[in-house]
Amino acid sequence: MSKKGICYLVGAGPGDVGLVTLKAKDCVERADVLVYDALSSPEILRWAKPDAELVYVGKRADNHALPQDGINALIVARTKEGKTVVRLKGGDPMIFGRGGEEAAELAAAGVAFEIVPGISSSIAGPAYAGIPVTHRDHCSQLTIFTGHEDPTKPGSSLDYAHLAKTPGTKVFLMGMSRLREICKAFIQHGADPATPIALTRWATTGRQKTL
Amino acid sequence: MSKKGICYLVGAGPGDVGLVTLKAKDCVERADVLVYDALSSPEILRWAKPDAELVYVGKRADNHALPQDGINALIVARTKEGKTVVRLKGGDPMIFGRGGEEAAELAAAGVAFEIVPGISSSIAGPAYAGIPVTHRDHCSQLTIFTGHEDPTKPGSSLDYAHLAKTPGTKVFLMGMSRLREICKAFIQHGADPATPIALTRWATTGRQKTL
Repeated sequence: MSKKGICYLVGAGPGDVGLVTLKAKDCVERADVLVYDALSSPEILRWAKPDAELVYVGKRADNHALPQDGINALIVARTKEGKTVVRLKGGDPMIFGRGGEEAAELAAAGVAFEIVPGISSSIAGPAYAGIPVTHRDHCSQLTIFTGHEDPTKPGSSLDYAHLAKTPGTKVFLMGMSRLREICKAFIQHGADPATPIALTRWATTGRQKTL
Repeated sequence: MSKKGICYLVGAGPGDVGLVTLKAKDCVERADVLVYDALSSPEILRWAKPDAELVYVGKRADNHALPQDGINALIVARTKEGKTVVRLKGGDPMIFGRGGEEAAELAAAGVAFEIVPGISSSIAGPAYAGIPVTHRDHCSQLTIFTGHEDPTKPGSSLDYAHLAKTPGTKVFLMGMSRLREICKAFIQHGADPATPIALTRWATTGRQKTL
């Protein structure tokens, strides 16, 4: 009788290894199979058992080591084999991390899975740059967008006319390559061109840059 | 020559001790002074040194053990004494946690401080309930609000006419006591009364309830 497999969808946090959760570390240490993206902190992989199977499925822009369907098939198959599978993703698996899709696949396949939230760069990046994303006196709402939309969607799924009037802090994730279009759309729809903005990259790593 | 003090504004995460970060645990273990709120996971306090000074300043609705000014004064004073001070807050210190105000006070006092982000219940609560807050095919934006506004503000700082038209996932934190007003305002401003909603409390603890 083989043991029952389980798949953990684990957020690895934004980059600083210190921002990994205790549970995420525990999952990595127990994993039989570790399926990971291009992580900001590769030292996390050193926590794995010496005989763990490590599978890199990293995505950087359009360069996918393994397409999403392949990732889904892999984690389902290994979990069905009775393995403890850890799907390690940067940030939080549920914030523009496609964790929802992977969870749906695991559920449809009838295998056990668990979601382990991680710290999202959308909040930690500003924090490390000294920017509180909410403030009792100034800001009662925070909106997080993807700056990296599904190009197969007809038109933009983001309504910039509405966004330009949305109060509070707005965070675009993965927005660098579309920065010009995003700023242009905001200003076209009435946003104050003097609105302060901050750009952060390599959030919470030793290399974090903020402009 | 006494050692230089530092204050860490630390997010304790949403409740599950496993969702505490490695860095937060390290801070608690090194703290000379631990200033903490009503935490969902009191076992975190057991990581403190036996001789650490523990100060409870918890807030539950209108019952404050110590008002915000007193908290600010306390963490500044202890840091100036050369202590390693840890200000431990539920969730993330920068998401409706008043961490921005405390950071501003520490900066104004000229003492060293560092922000240690934590996992917010706004994302972990839905995740533990099986709800992805974003999805590539369905949802490109996530908005987080306080359901517990500063009552001294003139009128509502939240524009419900705008909110009702805002696409994507909307999460209200601490919204239970105003749930009726929030739903009413949404429907009044044209939101579909059939919009699915989920209520989560005691997020990520063994007691989490979701409706």
